[in-house]
Amino acid sequence: MDWSKHYAERLSLMGHSEVAQILELTSRPEVISLAGGLPSPDSFLLEETQEEAISVFRDLGSASLGYGPTEGLPPLREALAERMTLKGRSSGKGEILLTTGGIAALDLICKALLESGDFVIIEEPSYLAAIQVFRSYGAQFLGIPTDQDGVCLDALEVRLDELIASGRRPKFFYIIPSFQNPSGNCLATERREKLVGICNARGIPIVEDGAYEDLRFEGEFQSNLASIDPEVVHVNTFSKIMHPGLRLGWINGPDVLIEKLALCKQGQDQCSSTSGQHLAERFLRKGLVEQQLRKSRAIYREHRDLTIEAFKENFPKESLASRPQGGFYCWIDLPEEINTVRLLPEVVESENVAYVGGSAFYHDRDMGTNQIRLAYSFVSGDKLKDAVARLGRFFQSKLSA
Amino acid sequence: MDWSKHYAERLSLMGHSEVAQILELTSRPEVISLAGGLPSPDSFLLEETQEEAISVFRDLGSASLGYGPTEGLPPLREALAERMTLKGRSSGKGEILLTTGGIAALDLICKALLESGDFVIIEEPSYLAAIQVFRSYGAQFLGIPTDQDGVCLDALEVRLDELIASGRRPKFFYIIPSFQNPSGNCLATERREKLVGICNARGIPIVEDGAYEDLRFEGEFQSNLASIDPEVVHVNTFSKIMHPGLRLGWINGPDVLIEKLALCKQGQDQCSSTSGQHLAERFLRKGLVEQQLRKSRAIYREHRDLTIEAFKENFPKESLASRPQGGFYCWIDLPEEINTVRLLPEVVESENVAYVGGSAFYHDRDMGTNQIRLAYSFVSGDKLKDAVARLGRFFQSKLSA
Repeated sequence: MDWSKHYAERLSLMGHSEVAQILELTSRPEVISLAGGLPSPDSFLLEETQEEAISVFRDLGSASLGYGPTEGLPPLREALAERMTLKGRSSGKGEILLTTGGIAALDLICKALLESGDFVIIEEPSYLAAIQVFRSYGAQFLGIPTDQDGVCLDALEVRLDELIASGRRPKFFYIIPSFQNPSGNCLATERREKLVGICNARGIPIVEDGAYEDLRFEGEFQSNLASIDPEVVHVNTFSKIMHPGLRLGWINGPDVLIEKLALCKQGQDQCSSTSGQHLAERFLRKGLVEQQLRKSRAIYREHRDLTIEAFKENFPKESLASRPQGGFYCWIDLPEEINTVRLLPEVVESENVAYVGGSAFYHDRDMGTNQIRLAYSFVSGDKLKDAVARLGRFFQSKLSA
Repeated sequence: MDWSKHYAERLSLMGHSEVAQILELTSRPEVISLAGGLPSPDSFLLEETQEEAISVFRDLGSASLGYGPTEGLPPLREALAERMTLKGRSSGKGEILLTTGGIAALDLICKALLESGDFVIIEEPSYLAAIQVFRSYGAQFLGIPTDQDGVCLDALEVRLDELIASGRRPKFFYIIPSFQNPSGNCLATERREKLVGICNARGIPIVEDGAYEDLRFEGEFQSNLASIDPEVVHVNTFSKIMHPGLRLGWINGPDVLIEKLALCKQGQDQCSSTSGQHLAERFLRKGLVEQQLRKSRAIYREHRDLTIEAFKENFPKESLASRPQGGFYCWIDLPEEINTVRLLPEVVESENVAYVGGSAFYHDRDMGTNQIRLAYSFVSGDKLKDAVARLGRFFQSKLSA
């Protein structure tokens, strides 16, 4: 059978995926990968995870192995509602939907809201896997430029009004306000309320990705957008506060929307892992999430410092790096003559170091060709420092050549 | 915000879901639910599950908590390829994609193949959750009648050619050949090759759902459709051979298609549970899946017998029940004047027993109104017999009234 004749149009929009390339690069043992956004294995609470997993099993037996409700286990939804409330978004259980990770959460939101051809507003650069999800629903993109204080509000207003004036309506604004992927920057506090105001005035829903917001290791607490306006749809994941193998995330939003998203989840995967949800609930209830977060922040601060230090010592003088106060990523601008996308195979070959080239984070792949994202989260110590240094010297050699 | 203005068209197609209703009925402790297709908790290998879970954790530590490859862990893909090969569909690792359960597998297939408005061929009655998934992609339906030997091939040919002659092209045929959900019947062996021939002659892909095929407790082994033709896309799940809490399933199909489905999975949930996959791999490799299957078959045979016995003794004489040789379900035709959908709330209230009314299994909800699906899998012993008996007497009383 010639399968290519049977594929849906959306497949051609999804095209080649950098995620697959990143995972492939990571799989070669000799390559030090600063590509994928993997949490540090040192951040995991191994012993506690094992103990709690055993106790879930001992306490619940076969009940931990069956199906659960589509919306998620009630005690876990309650624990998450409490957590969101503590962070400033007063929430009840009915405003929480458990999902099979953060990407699954975005998939559900698209399923509920997006028609093919609809516009999604994104920061540029933005999370490449999210762009992939939106593409799989036939989305078009309105990319808004960012600076070190996050998305530029003047540009947002102008471009939004242009789009609306042309008769097209953006469906939602997808934004990562804290320790953004890939830039590592935060949306400035004074921009947060304004941003919500701009979107509200135009009736445009905001989808906030809070994946990294608990990983601040420097600077002052900032309220997330959901705390500013409970209509904001907040997406989050256990991958960064517990571990990715759980495959658990959640959506916090208005209960009418959560109901519709649960309907969509029935057609996505019916329910998320029962034993995993029990484990997550115990981690939240017993303060283990907070314990792990303290450990994580110390690790990532150290990794950030090593990265910045090696950057300063080895990258071409004309380069510019973000200085993240939390999260996993450092974003580097290189001189324009450096094409980071084209150079990637060579640098992997000659230096055994991998990064993600900047254009993966733009909907227009001609952008970002002199930028790179370094994920400093996974690799540690001298290995991290050495990898960043090798990258810097490699790019320097290309300039001198 | 008035969220109803923002919803995508597909939401209205999905409408009210019986799955949610079933789960709600099941949650009232006094109700004996023969509604949901839940495996018997007695079938689980509790001790072995705990032992193997601990050993995964002990052997792999933090590696069991991280992300895995989108396609699934290579050793598990290999073990599944071997399993499929043993059952007659010669397979390599590249022909297996791990998924987050059977519904997630169907969601991926739709993502890769379905455009809104495309036709999906289904048996009628068919699996209600699958119909929900297809609806969520804007599918239209061509329903083909079935008898106790499965789908009627004459009707299939006629209706298929009518549709094609009208210029519309069905995208695939979704079929559950063994211990069908909801009928419990099997597609007769002599119909299997013919069915494949009919679809192949018209270039129509077959999506085979093998969820129950290993649960035969009576009668002779039948080859699945994937064994007859390797172009058949075979969907399966660990929910019935291990436990549903794992949230693991797989797709077995041509490698070119598997690659595309993996691309779709990146936008669905990125990867499935790492520790869960390690556990499943050990269950397969150590023969624990087979051990559990032997246990399961004995349990479900007994449940089937109790159900049929209570049916014969208590249901109205004019009723007709299927006599499944495997799987979870018994399908009952009642006299036409009985509206099982309308009577469900009353029977739950007065008898504390729940079933699923027949119309949920048809794309046209006016069908099946005098039919019910009984899932005999979960409830056991006198409780099961009593529940079926109460249902029968209830319907009898409605006839006499």
